[in-house]
Amino acid sequence: MNNHTLGEKAFRKVLTDVSRSIYVEKWEISNENLELGHDWQITKRRLSGGLSDGVDVIDVNNGAFSYTLVPTRGMGIWKGSYKGTYIGWNSPVNDLVHPKFINLEAHEGLGWLDGFNEWVVRCGLGNFGGPGRDVIIDNNGNQKEIMLTLHGKIANIPASQVEAKVDLKEPFGLTVNGVVYERSMFGSNLKLKTSTSTTLGSNTVRIVDEITNLRAASDEMQILYHCNYGPPFLTEGSRLIAPIMEVAPNNQRSAEGVKEYDIFGPPQDGFVEQVYFIRLVGDTNGWTTAMLTNKDETQAVSVSFSLRQLPYFTLWKNTNIPEEGYVVGLEPGTGYPNPKAYERQMNRVPTLKPKETYRTELVLSVHLGKDEIQEMKEKIAKIQGKIKPKINQTPLR
Amino acid sequence: MNNHTLGEKAFRKVLTDVSRSIYVEKWEISNENLELGHDWQITKRRLSGGLSDGVDVIDVNNGAFSYTLVPTRGMGIWKGSYKGTYIGWNSPVNDLVHPKFINLEAHEGLGWLDGFNEWVVRCGLGNFGGPGRDVIIDNNGNQKEIMLTLHGKIANIPASQVEAKVDLKEPFGLTVNGVVYERSMFGSNLKLKTSTSTTLGSNTVRIVDEITNLRAASDEMQILYHCNYGPPFLTEGSRLIAPIMEVAPNNQRSAEGVKEYDIFGPPQDGFVEQVYFIRLVGDTNGWTTAMLTNKDETQAVSVSFSLRQLPYFTLWKNTNIPEEGYVVGLEPGTGYPNPKAYERQMNRVPTLKPKETYRTELVLSVHLGKDEIQEMKEKIAKIQGKIKPKINQTPLR
Amino acid sequence: MNNHTLGEKAFRKVLTDVSRSIYVEKWEISNENLELGHDWQITKRRLSGGLSDGVDVIDVNNGAFSYTLVPTRGMGIWKGSYKGTYIGWNSPVNDLVHPKFINLEAHEGLGWLDGFNEWVVRCGLGNFGGPGRDVIIDNNGNQKEIMLTLHGKIANIPASQVEAKVDLKEPFGLTVNGVVYERSMFGSNLKLKTSTSTTLGSNTVRIVDEITNLRAASDEMQILYHCNYGPPFLTEGSRLIAPIMEVAPNNQRSAEGVKEYDIFGPPQDGFVEQVYFIRLVGDTNGWTTAMLTNKDETQAVSVSFSLRQLPYFTLWKNTNIPEEGYVVGLEPGTGYPNPKAYERQMNRVPTLKPKETYRTELVLSVHLGKDEIQEMKEKIAKIQGKIKPKINQTPLR
Repeated sequence: MNNHTLGEKAFRKVLTDVSRSIYVEKWEISNENLELGHDWQITKRRLSGGLSDGVDVIDVNNGAFSYTLVPTRGMGIWKGSYKGTYIGWNSPVNDLVHPKFINLEAHEGLGWLDGFNEWVVRCGLGNFGGPGRDVIIDNNGNQKEIMLTLHGKIANIPASQVEAKVDLKEPFGLTVNGVVYERSMFGSNLKLKTSTSTTLGSNTVRIVDEITNLRAASDEMQILYHCNYGPPFLTEGSRLIAPIMEVAPNNQRSAEGVKEYDIFGPPQDGFVEQVYFIRLVGDTNGWTTAMLTNKDETQAVSVSFSLRQLPYFTLWKNTNIPEEGYVVGLEPGTGYPNPKAYERQMNRVPTLKPKETYRTELVLSVHLGKDEIQEMKEKIAKIQGKIKPKINQTPLR
Repeated sequence: MNNHTLGEKAFRKVLTDVSRSIYVEKWEISNENLELGHDWQITKRRLSGGLSDGVDVIDVNNGAFSYTLVPTRGMGIWKGSYKGTYIGWNSPVNDLVHPKFINLEAHEGLGWLDGFNEWVVRCGLGNFGGPGRDVIIDNNGNQKEIMLTLHGKIANIPASQVEAKVDLKEPFGLTVNGVVYERSMFGSNLKLKTSTSTTLGSNTVRIVDEITNLRAASDEMQILYHCNYGPPFLTEGSRLIAPIMEVAPNNQRSAEGVKEYDIFGPPQDGFVEQVYFIRLVGDTNGWTTAMLTNKDETQAVSVSFSLRQLPYFTLWKNTNIPEEGYVVGLEPGTGYPNPKAYERQMNRVPTLKPKETYRTELVLSVHLGKDEIQEMKEKIAKIQGKIKPKINQTPLR
Repeated sequence: MNNHTLGEKAFRKVLTDVSRSIYVEKWEISNENLELGHDWQITKRRLSGGLSDGVDVIDVNNGAFSYTLVPTRGMGIWKGSYKGTYIGWNSPVNDLVHPKFINLEAHEGLGWLDGFNEWVVRCGLGNFGGPGRDVIIDNNGNQKEIMLTLHGKIANIPASQVEAKVDLKEPFGLTVNGVVYERSMFGSNLKLKTSTSTTLGSNTVRIVDEITNLRAASDEMQILYHCNYGPPFLTEGSRLIAPIMEVAPNNQRSAEGVKEYDIFGPPQDGFVEQVYFIRLVGDTNGWTTAMLTNKDETQAVSVSFSLRQLPYFTLWKNTNIPEEGYVVGLEPGTGYPNPKAYERQMNRVPTLKPKETYRTELVLSVHLGKDEIQEMKEKIAKIQGKIKPKINQTPLR
């Protein structure tokens, strides 16, 4: 990253670089500084007070789409807004929570839930999924049984490097780059290099992540993108539209609803979450798209990604009443959110060789109006082709 | 809360409101700004360095009584001073400790003790009392056994909203309002709305708390006010004077001292704490008062509250030598500080319906001089009336 | 500590004193302010961003030797440089990590490793060594089994007092004093008073620590100085030169290498650490010196200390490849880094009476050039005298 340079027709600003002692608490750039013929803005600020004290956020606004990145919480995206429509959900945990107030080990590994309120939150990198016992190799080369905590550590690690970048040629990209390290002496040393970008006026946010194993030894890595949506995309009669290969409920409770796994009900008091493990169909390049649309098909969001990078897709239905979090999760991942030991048995935990990089790419879009959504439906239908979805009525194994 | 308005004959100043991105690091108001014909002051500051780094405190001084509120530690009261007399105690933990340095789970759930030094500290809201196993319902609707940590979380959660308020008419109240959330996705969602006030020249601090269950489902709540006093109120021969219905030692160790449960000894090397569970008598409105007075009956403190709100009273005798914390706790609560699972069995854990609010009120006073204390004694004797205290020599059950 | 005074021919500056609400975020003094006829400097700054956010560091430069003290991490020394030669090591954990991001309890008591990257880090004070179960006395006077975490708490506690001091007479000492409390209500109350000093142009840093038991009861205390060195002092063929009484490997793995325990290999992929427990010989005053020299004997470091204060010496060989931390630890201590319960059995855990102080002193030097190193070798040989080292081939007991 370069500080404040204009190389390659881009304006760059380093906001954080711990190793170079660079940190910018407050910063702003907009069309007033850099005229790109559109109303846009990037704002860096630090929150103060309450559980948000010390959280760094970056607001990006491309003129149509605005969203808030959170360097302090592993470069997740808190929430967004597209042409006035809210993107994200309303968690009982309203405010951003600084990792210093989170004890991942609390409640037998459920502490992650004390800070869970983002639109897009990464689960990983050492592990994701439910808490569970696992075995590590300790400093003496011996096996040691430890507890892996819910959804891992990455969402509660602040970025060591953060940079804003504005492209000076069409389509005028607005990018925030970040580097987050999940590492320990005698432990994993995984580097997340992430780039979140949009272009002026666009309906899309693109996340490109490179996860590198910095160790001298091979090491496991897991990543799952927990993309969460509430109203107006989630309402009674909303549907998941995606090219389906196979669906399976994760447990008996979810099996109860498998016939309507792709249809969402109204907020329901006491609703217990249902989770579906899904294999999607990809196009000839391995890319696929899952869309959540409201009943009228006037408001929709989609998540596109490569099945070669993120082969497994989890659908989380939590249509409880609003104060409990009326929310649906679209979750592409390297596996399903079971405890890691189980995923390893199922061969769904990638191993990275020394210095090997695992690349993922995620395109998050908003679609307003019947025409746009109809177009997306056709695109998804084309990927589905003649493949007949297999719907398992009961959990696999 | 309104920012900086003069509605209803009060001056108001929002010092923190996380949801509105308001945070005031340093602020002061006094009779120089707002002439009320008395020497008074409210000061907001943030501590830096050591374990206090980042702790927000608010010093309130009504001209006679001053005390320090701690928004960062759940709106507790660190210590006070009335006409030059110190109120509080000297914990081995001298300085205020920021919650980021506290791991409640440490030492098998005893981490709370690393930050325990307040005059008034709330224990709760999900639980209080000794650490113990309990069962929660997890995101899958399954029972999960977890550890509840000593005295719960509320004292280590920063307030999300803080406001100072100065009444512009007699008796010129000085109030600090705060809101603290103890909440998690799939967990409890309890809101503490607290108001701590005094009036110019007064010997009294009044705490009014409203605890609301924001969940859509019924949920349990526990609150205990751990009000702690050392010298000069606690000295050899100090006494607890209160209208007693029934007393019981909490264990065999406490049973040894039950005959003199209401009399306090000098600092004693190696003294192991004694705890008494007490039912007090209330007046016709259900209100009661417990007073701690020195032997001469020249310096006393009292705690008044409603038995309808806080039916159980715990007396904590820890008359160890000063460097170990020579201290007595007067602790009105919704139950006794046993592990929550036991209290539930005894039917001493209130349940709040969705959106239900539990209100408590606590009046903390200082009494100097024989006349004032004599007056308090008479008031307490009147509540006692003809009721004969029942003193159990051994623990109940 | 006095603020800004010139008493006793020294310039003093209090940088932190929590009890007096003193905290200086940024400060610098150098030969430009105080002409001592040499190029020297002391700089205080606070780091921002990433995992280093909020870490206070003090850079001391005596003109030849510079090093970085870390008040926020228990007054450890992060790294240094002597005449352009780097002192310390390259941990996979590159940056300084603020204690608020460390959960010592994580990974069954291995959380300390998430922040381990210092040249000199204290292990203690309540315990050091591997994690293990131990028994404490709780507030009820009962025994309670808890987990002691790896290497204890002191390296993750910020100093409550920090002061810089510049002597105004020869040899012009540059000193940083600090006070760190490891304490809890009903728990240990150990005060570390530490003084780290050098003199203008010197090749030496001197650490003087006083650890006081502030409790009214006797209490245990453990301290080990984990002094860690990588290249250029550690390279293939580097050697430990020290007056040896007896050596024993800590386990079977270490036993494999006991014949060459004092010779260091090149970085080796997958090298599992080897640890040797060593009794050194002392001079007539009980002082001893251990030196790590490169093969050519042109670059060396030494650690000198009193065996009356620090009777046990541990050698940690971790000659893994650089990205895993190619490092050797020279570790004088009050015992060996076994779990505390075991050390207690071996009578290697000191007990301090009430108010008793345990004093330790450590002299860390850098030696450049064959002459200097030859001189050190002779000094060490003289201490060795005619004593024949006893090398145990297998672990003791």
